[in-house]
Amino acid sequence: MTCITILIHCNDQSGIIASVTNFIAQKQGNIIYIDQHVDRDQNVFFMRLETEFDDSIFDENSFKSSFKDELVDKFHFTWRIYSSDHKVKMAVFVSKYDHCLYDILGRYNSGELNIEIPFILSNHMDLAPIAKSFNIPFYHIPITKNSKVEAEAEQLKLLEYHDIDFIVLARYMQIVSKTLIDNYPNKIINIHHSFLPAFVGAKPYHSAFKRGVKIIGATSHYITEELDAGPIIEQDVTRVSHSHSITDLISKGRDLEKIVLSNAIKLHIDRKVMVYNNKTVIFS
Amino acid sequence: MTCITILIHCNDQSGIIASVTNFIAQKQGNIIYIDQHVDRDQNVFFMRLETEFDDSIFDENSFKSSFKDELVDKFHFTWRIYSSDHKVKMAVFVSKYDHCLYDILGRYNSGELNIEIPFILSNHMDLAPIAKSFNIPFYHIPITKNSKVEAEAEQLKLLEYHDIDFIVLARYMQIVSKTLIDNYPNKIINIHHSFLPAFVGAKPYHSAFKRGVKIIGATSHYITEELDAGPIIEQDVTRVSHSHSITDLISKGRDLEKIVLSNAIKLHIDRKVMVYNNKTVIFS
Amino acid sequence: MTCITILIHCNDQSGIIASVTNFIAQKQGNIIYIDQHVDRDQNVFFMRLETEFDDSIFDENSFKSSFKDELVDKFHFTWRIYSSDHKVKMAVFVSKYDHCLYDILGRYNSGELNIEIPFILSNHMDLAPIAKSFNIPFYHIPITKNSKVEAEAEQLKLLEYHDIDFIVLARYMQIVSKTLIDNYPNKIINIHHSFLPAFVGAKPYHSAFKRGVKIIGATSHYITEELDAGPIIEQDVTRVSHSHSITDLISKGRDLEKIVLSNAIKLHIDRKVMVYNNKTVIFS
Amino acid sequence: MTCITILIHCNDQSGIIASVTNFIAQKQGNIIYIDQHVDRDQNVFFMRLETEFDDSIFDENSFKSSFKDELVDKFHFTWRIYSSDHKVKMAVFVSKYDHCLYDILGRYNSGELNIEIPFILSNHMDLAPIAKSFNIPFYHIPITKNSKVEAEAEQLKLLEYHDIDFIVLARYMQIVSKTLIDNYPNKIINIHHSFLPAFVGAKPYHSAFKRGVKIIGATSHYITEELDAGPIIEQDVTRVSHSHSITDLISKGRDLEKIVLSNAIKLHIDRKVMVYNNKTVIFS
Repeated sequence: MTCITILIHCNDQSGIIASVTNFIAQKQGNIIYIDQHVDRDQNVFFMRLETEFDDSIFDENSFKSSFKDELVDKFHFTWRIYSSDHKVKMAVFVSKYDHCLYDILGRYNSGELNIEIPFILSNHMDLAPIAKSFNIPFYHIPITKNSKVEAEAEQLKLLEYHDIDFIVLARYMQIVSKTLIDNYPNKIINIHHSFLPAFVGAKPYHSAFKRGVKIIGATSHYITEELDAGPIIEQDVTRVSHSHSITDLISKGRDLEKIVLSNAIKLHIDRKVMVYNNKTVIFS
Repeated sequence: MTCITILIHCNDQSGIIASVTNFIAQKQGNIIYIDQHVDRDQNVFFMRLETEFDDSIFDENSFKSSFKDELVDKFHFTWRIYSSDHKVKMAVFVSKYDHCLYDILGRYNSGELNIEIPFILSNHMDLAPIAKSFNIPFYHIPITKNSKVEAEAEQLKLLEYHDIDFIVLARYMQIVSKTLIDNYPNKIINIHHSFLPAFVGAKPYHSAFKRGVKIIGATSHYITEELDAGPIIEQDVTRVSHSHSITDLISKGRDLEKIVLSNAIKLHIDRKVMVYNNKTVIFS
Repeated sequence: MTCITILIHCNDQSGIIASVTNFIAQKQGNIIYIDQHVDRDQNVFFMRLETEFDDSIFDENSFKSSFKDELVDKFHFTWRIYSSDHKVKMAVFVSKYDHCLYDILGRYNSGELNIEIPFILSNHMDLAPIAKSFNIPFYHIPITKNSKVEAEAEQLKLLEYHDIDFIVLARYMQIVSKTLIDNYPNKIINIHHSFLPAFVGAKPYHSAFKRGVKIIGATSHYITEELDAGPIIEQDVTRVSHSHSITDLISKGRDLEKIVLSNAIKLHIDRKVMVYNNKTVIFS
Repeated sequence: MTCITILIHCNDQSGIIASVTNFIAQKQGNIIYIDQHVDRDQNVFFMRLETEFDDSIFDENSFKSSFKDELVDKFHFTWRIYSSDHKVKMAVFVSKYDHCLYDILGRYNSGELNIEIPFILSNHMDLAPIAKSFNIPFYHIPITKNSKVEAEAEQLKLLEYHDIDFIVLARYMQIVSKTLIDNYPNKIINIHHSFLPAFVGAKPYHSAFKRGVKIIGATSHYITEELDAGPIIEQDVTRVSHSHSITDLISKGRDLEKIVLSNAIKLHIDRKVMVYNNKTVIFS
């Protein structure tokens, strides 16, 4: 059995659902999941399907080619098709904070994440022992003001060499360049410490503390050129009070960050996120 | 434009989605919402569709009849079809507590609920002034041990006379008889004060207080014969601490109850709830 | 039995708690609640006490005078003392939205709020029938660009005439003038529709929708001259998704607004809020 | 500077707060935190104080002795005094699940928990590599029906030898004997997978799934003889829907479990939990 996930978006128009489901039926696929959304504001139609095919009759390339001929050209789909055969490859970028890394690797180790992690990359050596204890290669590429361009070239080479599908910035603490973003559009997941877009910029916990907020949060989003303004994948919050110090806020924030980031990673791996106009549709 | 909502469940089998969407396309309907769920545990397929038809070509009765002939008999659907033309009629049963009633009537008055409320019914006179201030007929049917059977006969007569679609028990505080339940299966919505199924029975807040719980909740469910064990429509919780008295818990519980009940009502009105094996599928 | 609530803040220094509790003991008071907080960032000490006195021996004026002589002058307290004898008077300002008003009046009617509501004031006539159905005087003071100064003078006269303790802006939709704020410092409670300080300004739900946020909230705060930047009393949030329209967000927001505003009102009535440097300490 | 934490409970009576704070003042201590609670239902007074003393004048033993003579005997306190000098020793019991262990050790490693972990103990070898990667001794004490008594004798010997202060059952999956509980009363912290006391017993996630609950939770509590009925330290919940499989529920439950357990551990370490009549007071 091969399981195929299809993601489509296009201008909203009559008959899309019937045409697509009909096409699947003709190809002898069994739809096991269908979800659709219409953004009435922008008149965009989104659809996500999971379909099972018998291996004896299914050929991915000919399926894609028929799909394109019969549907894509007619409805002007933007489309992606993923096969369950392909195991997704994720690179993790870290800096000095370890809480998100531990959370990701703990899940990875226990089989919760059905992926490969070819390497962990950092601009510092601090977390190398953690990578080692999980038997994952660790690359140290230091970054200085002058070496930034070469460092990123090296990063890109590593990503390409290992055929990486997407990148997780697990508290990476560095601004990612346009080149990297352009090579991995909506494929670099960041976690932002604080309630985005509440306190954009440095020291958000200090701002939140000073303002006496009663709730803090964390947001995971895809990286875009505009800082901390990319499409939001997942958010969560927790209550705080005047009795919490900045240290307490940061500690509670870390707990949020690791859970929110891991949830965003799982949504991405399961192909449940669609992006349009800097906004996500989450089929969960 | 007529908008039709179709709810289907049946044994899971290949080709349902394609057949249904194809059928709609042939009838020149435009699917504006489709959602499906498969309960793999029980092998049951659920689907909800919203479809728009041009009034000039759409006839509800002939649509239903074709639907039955071409699809229901083939796939053995359990099915319901609702037209946007029909305005739902809701009866509200109350006793002495007013918080849920105020919440419902406030929403009703501001146009948030697209329904009619032909009457409010109570076994006590306490809330008659509230009904009056909202210009809604109030029926007082007292219930004593000896009068219970006649009282319920009277209730049924009222419900039938007013062609009521569903009943909301807004803290009604009476056990509803099998007769009423059988006449309105999965159409009587209750709100349970406490975290169901945590502390079944009387005085749950006292049990929760004594146990020192840190979280309390409210559950809205359809009434079934087994007390407080019907299909759950909506739940919510809030944090409490040792510093809260039983009175505080009850007050916080009231806030939960009114919001949870109103959310359940809205899901029911929008035909977003399907029930199977004492469990709900909520398409929201 | 008289119950006295004492609120104190001052520079943090040794011996405050012992001195105050000792003073109460000498006056034969029984402390039934004590809570304290030190803001180490700003070196400020906060304390809240509830104390019971036998009526036969307690005289409020002489207590206050001793308190001032023995403690206030020594520690340079900023202080407030409230007696349970005094019933708090709250004015409600509304405009056209009714959800917060219904919520407040429902609680008021059921005895949940131990206050008087001498009047409801609005710049529109829309909600007059609601005030009438709860038997509360309704004053209509229209506001135009040219009449703003006179309108506020009229408001102030009403507030003074009725000896109002604090004001609730239950979706009042008007910017309140400096004069009113200065007369009621940290005594005007607002509810802000949206997640403060996320999207300051007009149409926050539209901004939140456009940004695809997964969580929306409401914030209740005291009014200060800087718009929506006053000390935060209470916040709450709820989850949303891409499937929610702007109308859905607004409806969910209304539910948050009414609960958050009512919680803030209760905290204020119970004298559980202290303000310092535009930030609250909530002793709850 | 020595920091002393004092926990007291006794029958509620006049003058306790004044007497205790006065006593501290006489000993030249500076109270930096005071919190108190009266359980009016049971007439019990609870208090928690943190006090700083200059090392040059403070002697712990003489302080304790004076405290006993002047206060404990007079008010019949049940009391505990902890000095910041003493570093708490925590043993971790595990079985085969690793998510809670990773979470605890990640925090331990990053310095978030100010404790020692002398050893990890398990009835299985599965998690030994994790202990090794964090450089913590791992003891494997298998348990069979016949060896249970000896196994527990061995556990006790280890606990005593290492002078363990409290035990964390990080998904230990074994029923703990009365002997161990009696030796560590309110000092064995458990995490219960499911919403306690909702579905007591085996397979709670299956029960929750079958019931179609919309919210699941986790509860951390002290172990008592009655299974899963000990004093609750911390709880949290998350939303689920019909679209989540049992596997999804369990995965979401794991995320709750690890955060709730770690929060409970932190409250215990900080001496913020008091237990009375099988119920906790949490001074946080």
